[in-house]
Amino acid sequence: MNGAVFKTVSEPARAGLGRFDSYTPPPNCSRPTLIHSDHYRIIEFPNERSNEWSASVLARFEREARTGCMINFQTSPDQYKHWKLSFAGAVARLSMDVAEDETLNEGYKLKLNSYDLGVDIELADAIQRIRFEHPEVRAVVITSLKPRIFCAGANIYMLGTSSHAFKVNFCKFTNETRCAIEDDSHHSGRRYLAALNGTASGGGYELAIACDEIYLVDDGNSAVSLPEVPLLGVLPGTGGLTRLVDKRKVRRDRADVFSTLAEGLKGKRAKEWGLIDDTFATTKFQDGVDERVAQIVNLRGGEGDTQVNNLRYSGIKLNPLEVNSSDDSRDYKYVSLQFHRDKRYADLTVRAPESDLPATGDEIQKLGDDYWALRAYRELDDALLHLRVNEPEIGLVCVRTEGKVANVLAVDKTLAANRDHWLVRETLLQMARTLRRMDLTAKSFFSIIEPGSCFAGNLFELVLASDRSYMLNNPDETVEVALSELNVGTFPMSNGLTRLQSRFLAEPKNAYEAFAHEGPFDTEAADAAGLVTFAPDDLDWDDEIRLAIEERTSLSPDALTGMEASLRFAGPETMDTKIYGRLTAWQNWIFQRPNAVGPNGALTNYGKPTQAQFDYKRT
Amino acid sequence: MNGAVFKTVSEPARAGLGRFDSYTPPPNCSRPTLIHSDHYRIIEFPNERSNEWSASVLARFEREARTGCMINFQTSPDQYKHWKLSFAGAVARLSMDVAEDETLNEGYKLKLNSYDLGVDIELADAIQRIRFEHPEVRAVVITSLKPRIFCAGANIYMLGTSSHAFKVNFCKFTNETRCAIEDDSHHSGRRYLAALNGTASGGGYELAIACDEIYLVDDGNSAVSLPEVPLLGVLPGTGGLTRLVDKRKVRRDRADVFSTLAEGLKGKRAKEWGLIDDTFATTKFQDGVDERVAQIVNLRGGEGDTQVNNLRYSGIKLNPLEVNSSDDSRDYKYVSLQFHRDKRYADLTVRAPESDLPATGDEIQKLGDDYWALRAYRELDDALLHLRVNEPEIGLVCVRTEGKVANVLAVDKTLAANRDHWLVRETLLQMARTLRRMDLTAKSFFSIIEPGSCFAGNLFELVLASDRSYMLNNPDETVEVALSELNVGTFPMSNGLTRLQSRFLAEPKNAYEAFAHEGPFDTEAADAAGLVTFAPDDLDWDDEIRLAIEERTSLSPDALTGMEASLRFAGPETMDTKIYGRLTAWQNWIFQRPNAVGPNGALTNYGKPTQAQFDYKRT
Repeated sequence: MNGAVFKTVSEPARAGLGRFDSYTPPPNCSRPTLIHSDHYRIIEFPNERSNEWSASVLARFEREARTGCMINFQTSPDQYKHWKLSFAGAVARLSMDVAEDETLNEGYKLKLNSYDLGVDIELADAIQRIRFEHPEVRAVVITSLKPRIFCAGANIYMLGTSSHAFKVNFCKFTNETRCAIEDDSHHSGRRYLAALNGTASGGGYELAIACDEIYLVDDGNSAVSLPEVPLLGVLPGTGGLTRLVDKRKVRRDRADVFSTLAEGLKGKRAKEWGLIDDTFATTKFQDGVDERVAQIVNLRGGEGDTQVNNLRYSGIKLNPLEVNSSDDSRDYKYVSLQFHRDKRYADLTVRAPESDLPATGDEIQKLGDDYWALRAYRELDDALLHLRVNEPEIGLVCVRTEGKVANVLAVDKTLAANRDHWLVRETLLQMARTLRRMDLTAKSFFSIIEPGSCFAGNLFELVLASDRSYMLNNPDETVEVALSELNVGTFPMSNGLTRLQSRFLAEPKNAYEAFAHEGPFDTEAADAAGLVTFAPDDLDWDDEIRLAIEERTSLSPDALTGMEASLRFAGPETMDTKIYGRLTAWQNWIFQRPNAVGPNGALTNYGKPTQAQFDYKRT
Repeated sequence: MNGAVFKTVSEPARAGLGRFDSYTPPPNCSRPTLIHSDHYRIIEFPNERSNEWSASVLARFEREARTGCMINFQTSPDQYKHWKLSFAGAVARLSMDVAEDETLNEGYKLKLNSYDLGVDIELADAIQRIRFEHPEVRAVVITSLKPRIFCAGANIYMLGTSSHAFKVNFCKFTNETRCAIEDDSHHSGRRYLAALNGTASGGGYELAIACDEIYLVDDGNSAVSLPEVPLLGVLPGTGGLTRLVDKRKVRRDRADVFSTLAEGLKGKRAKEWGLIDDTFATTKFQDGVDERVAQIVNLRGGEGDTQVNNLRYSGIKLNPLEVNSSDDSRDYKYVSLQFHRDKRYADLTVRAPESDLPATGDEIQKLGDDYWALRAYRELDDALLHLRVNEPEIGLVCVRTEGKVANVLAVDKTLAANRDHWLVRETLLQMARTLRRMDLTAKSFFSIIEPGSCFAGNLFELVLASDRSYMLNNPDETVEVALSELNVGTFPMSNGLTRLQSRFLAEPKNAYEAFAHEGPFDTEAADAAGLVTFAPDDLDWDDEIRLAIEERTSLSPDALTGMEASLRFAGPETMDTKIYGRLTAWQNWIFQRPNAVGPNGALTNYGKPTQAQFDYKRT
């Protein structure tokens, strides 16, 4: 850390989170500027910086800022600061008890169980651990340990002082966490209950509405509410509006009233309008929730009840991922990131499994989190999150693979044959979620298919998830891609289609023909089957890749984000795509408007003696 | 016009379009400010205006600006400046020949068949006239009279100098025009052919892709392209990206390449990738298109071919709508707007039909455009457009009706009984489009249901399209609403559902029960059936309405726009809702980003010697 440049005002937090409060401008900078205390913004230099600072000085600032204040997405229950996770038989209890001073950043306190990204990283981790470490769980109760308050939602002061990019990434991650709850409920049959022992407002109610059932205490005071529009001039950013009308199917006029009513609605009216499932008096609240939990746990499903299967097994431990980071790289066991920051792109490489992997569910369970499919995709997931929030200047990711096609296909065969095993099912669902995280990442992805690569089966999804793919056409070398049965149903996109279906919307038979193809595809066969975008020959290869990278990284990053969000999701839309497409895009728009974030905006002025002043023109 | 305030630099254009280039600040304003020449911006005063000018001075400026520079959406072929519309038997030819100096505003020239809102108002009018005045038409050829250029898309300099709100409204209107082409093709069976006698770029290709078939001349030079992302740092704003992957189902990696390739693709490759349907050499282009047109025209449909029916009829004339405007009102025959600008809301009143209207299709045809259903909805359509672009400060519209419920239901009965008559069908489709225009209008709508109102059948759709409804509950007075068979399928929203279906997503049986209800609903029955939001009694009525208006108009207009865009479209999404929701929202976001519209942005710097400079962080 260069003391002349950054003044560190607090020790890096335990989970690898650091922060800087201010910086001293370099000697050759004439205009002193305050950079916001939000650790994320510190590497957001003004656009006109080139007028003020030399590139080399800036590069040093950025490097130092980067290594000092990265956000770490790994945690574990013994490190949780804000949640208590406990288990009793088939019931998990996830209790929110936010430590108001344990913030990811300076400048705000997490009062009233409000949250910042750090709180949500723990929630996401807890849900993962329930799935992998406690397959016996059939009901998850999400509640609060604070009296009279369930959760006040995302912290307003945190939002008010965050950069636009951070707000957008924060909302995306919290949305993914809530979708992970619904994924668990839908695919693994665990039932999530929101036990609202007090008021749930904003993101607090949005967390509740991601659960299957919502129970609210009737204490004459506690309410559910979405006060974002009336109080903050922004939208509930975590899917609330969409889930209101699409999941709970609240009548749109009632949804309109509810979403503009700062104080929200209490028990009886909230139940009548479908905002909650039931309400209990304070003295009966615990019993009411417990009774419902007991009903769920005692239900014995038929053949379709995948949970019954789980009860025979205990879970596996999710150990911390091992990462070696340097200034230009980040290496996991099976995944590597190599940063070319001067060229604004990164290489993301996934390595194939070894050849001697187990072939049965029980053997896989013995390997635990060291089994390739789980470990590689956990690493890939972490790498994607790292790229999103810690590497904002990287616009393009070149996706590469290394290893034997046969080994990847062998893993797919094992996974397909054992998909009824609880751990294999959870692993496949984790792979699917990671691939969706890639679909939703605001970076361009180009797959680079060269000799020694292994884009086969599950790893061919990386090609299908990429915006483009380049496959070397050289008759003298083996370059292959291959499909497996996992490509035809196991990894749905957010829109409900497989990536192969999405690719061949115009000619569905091409998807069937590609799947029916015997063995791997060489470059010409892959090109003919429509599986890759370009198949340059050996002579053109280097130039073509270089030019493609240069061209892509020269384009407006905002236009690319909007374009990719439009082109990646052809075909049907689902509640998920509505949340990430329609709702998120509107929120991003509002997050930039002066009425929200200008000096007189509602978000800026929240809690201040000054009041928001609006430009009332409708757009 | 107050010369001391506004300096008029040109005569108001023929279609009622005026413009001002600059203004002289009032004597009590210390800081002279240039207001953009864009006529729309002239009434966009800076947010901090209250610090500088007294409210009364400002109100005068705004009033004068308003009456002097309103955009008029009415036109007719004899007034067209940019299009030639000709008919030969069953073929209509719509030829683009943009007059580069006939702009809606100062500061740009419409070179190379580029367009501004004025050009698109003529296009929208032409499509309406084909439908109503020429029911015999079976094929519409859209082409250009300029050599080697079909259309260069929306004018960049116009976009670069327009306000954010104007860009958003411009894109919305052009989107609706393209959806009207598809509506005609889908529901009235007319086939639209884009005969690209030269390059179609940006909005030019987006116009082509709204047609059913696209033919491109193969002259070694002409191409189709979407250069917005690479050249301008924005998205193709008129549905191009969505139609690429959803309508033409172009493979997403090819769509990615195409949408980042400024020069686009020429004949052969364009056809291979599915961007066009065919390509003809220059000398064979006319013959090739004519031959395809002849095929279409000679096709004789079966029973389902609604066009055969049309051939027995000649069209009706769409006469100009009569409008009386005052400073505070805008009155058509059946529709009135009353502006309460100090309170930022307007009353929109629709009056019921008379009682002695015709009951057969042929009698309706004799009445022509004077028939209530057509006239009232044409007026409503114009009123909505007027509210959108000429009254930006109006945030809330109180929807009211006047007249007899029985008369509205009688019209609905006639329309339903004669829906196979070409004119009735076109009228119903026009009503459906107008109601969708309301769904897509960025204003809040409250329906106010009082004694003497006639929210019945087609007019009950206004209640269902409103964000909320208030119905007076007073046992001493008759207050009624009613449904008709037109409420159950005739007026689909953009998402494909009827508004009754959308309302009762949670309990579809409620929609059936409401429909099965005998006769009109009084207030308590309407409330019990879930047809209205609130039913205040006589004592509370005035206060409740006043408070609802005050509260709504106090909220952030941006948050309301985003909230309403999310709550109005529950249930399925279609290509239309993807265009208006996902794509439009992303474009609106990008339209605000410094990378597009900042001093170094791509849109700002287009065509200038300076080059765009991007902040390359991905968001």
